[in-house]
Amino acid sequence: MEASDLGGHISKRYNKDIEELRSSVLSMGGLVETQLQLAITAIVSGDSELGIQVANDDYKVNKLEVSIDEECSRILAMRAPAAGDLRLIVAIIKTITDLERIGDEAEKIGFLASRLAAMDRPSDSYRELKNLGTHVLHMLRDAMNAFARLDVQEALEVVREDDRADEEYEAIQRQCITFMMEDPRSIKRVMNVTWAARSLERIGDHAKNICEYVIYMVQGRDVRHTRFSDVAESSND
Amino acid sequence: MEASDLGGHISKRYNKDIEELRSSVLSMGGLVETQLQLAITAIVSGDSELGIQVANDDYKVNKLEVSIDEECSRILAMRAPAAGDLRLIVAIIKTITDLERIGDEAEKIGFLASRLAAMDRPSDSYRELKNLGTHVLHMLRDAMNAFARLDVQEALEVVREDDRADEEYEAIQRQCITFMMEDPRSIKRVMNVTWAARSLERIGDHAKNICEYVIYMVQGRDVRHTRFSDVAESSND
Repeated sequence: MEASDLGGHISKRYNKDIEELRSSVLSMGGLVETQLQLAITAIVSGDSELGIQVANDDYKVNKLEVSIDEECSRILAMRAPAAGDLRLIVAIIKTITDLERIGDEAEKIGFLASRLAAMDRPSDSYRELKNLGTHVLHMLRDAMNAFARLDVQEALEVVREDDRADEEYEAIQRQCITFMMEDPRSIKRVMNVTWAARSLERIGDHAKNICEYVIYMVQGRDVRHTRFSDVAESSND
Repeated sequence: MEASDLGGHISKRYNKDIEELRSSVLSMGGLVETQLQLAITAIVSGDSELGIQVANDDYKVNKLEVSIDEECSRILAMRAPAAGDLRLIVAIIKTITDLERIGDEAEKIGFLASRLAAMDRPSDSYRELKNLGTHVLHMLRDAMNAFARLDVQEALEVVREDDRADEEYEAIQRQCITFMMEDPRSIKRVMNVTWAARSLERIGDHAKNICEYVIYMVQGRDVRHTRFSDVAESSND
């Protein structure tokens, strides 16, 4: 075997490692999306069992995080990747932390759904939580698509969407305070709604974080803590 | 110059880089502690200006995060560290993310303090928030000490403390619900208390996360998502 064959062999194997790593992150993203989707359904349909099932399944997300983390460390140690690949791996280490935290929030929403299912139900079946939930679910999907396609424009879209999700969250909180003041007997129930809304708002933040890592990966620029307008402008250069 | 001198020179420089990196993380931890301390003081003393100042100073934490992150990537790319040093750098990348999120929570508490300062004040000056705040501030300090001294036993202590902080948080939430039911006119004010309590509880979680990275750094074992009793037991081997 020639030395150049060996080099080709090593780099083929290396590319395969990187591809598998990327696809594990996408699987983890898919699992987290499913968890979030089910948690929202559990709230809207008042399905206590489904809520508990989501909470119980969070360990699957955690397991994936640990195994991807180990694979990242292995590649860093064995292959000492440079430039682009190094940025990819640093971005993955951060992305899976955010995915794991989204899993934690879905777990909390699952518990809250099961608590809410045992209480009086409002006539609108928690429409406002459904709307915010659907919104952040789309943000998460778009974030994972931006990651898969290394699509900076799509990533910027999600960063922008997060402001709208925050506004929806604020509106829900104001509405909850009004409900509680009008009918103090509803306080216990409505507090669960405010906590679910808070978890959904956090999920939007995590989706936004993932998009910021995508931009860093592609452009090698850290856009966290930068004004949106500055980022969008320089991406059109 | 002999080759061995050059090697010694490179490794001395390398050790200096790693030491500077560790000490930047400790500075960032110190800054975040100060922010948290001031945010708690702002709530307890009803000092609106101090609350706003904490919120406005969060950019300093963010700046440190970005610069440490860049230094980590530089060392990974230039030095390709192996084993222990690689674990240190991966742990630092994760630690500064948690420190930055603690900074975000301190920022929120600063805003809430300024809002609460403009409202009726309870006779106990928010003693329960002060207690929980002091508790998680100690957890953060102990976490940074565990990081500085690579002290697994201290890290395990903080992991254990987090259960107590969660119980305190739950007690505050129950108390808040009781207050609101007894006096619905207090709802708007008390909701700010529940949000501040939530931020403090999150800070405890982040301190716990940092301790889990310390254990990973020292033992090369990922103890996240492991039962506390299992971790403590095998650390005594």
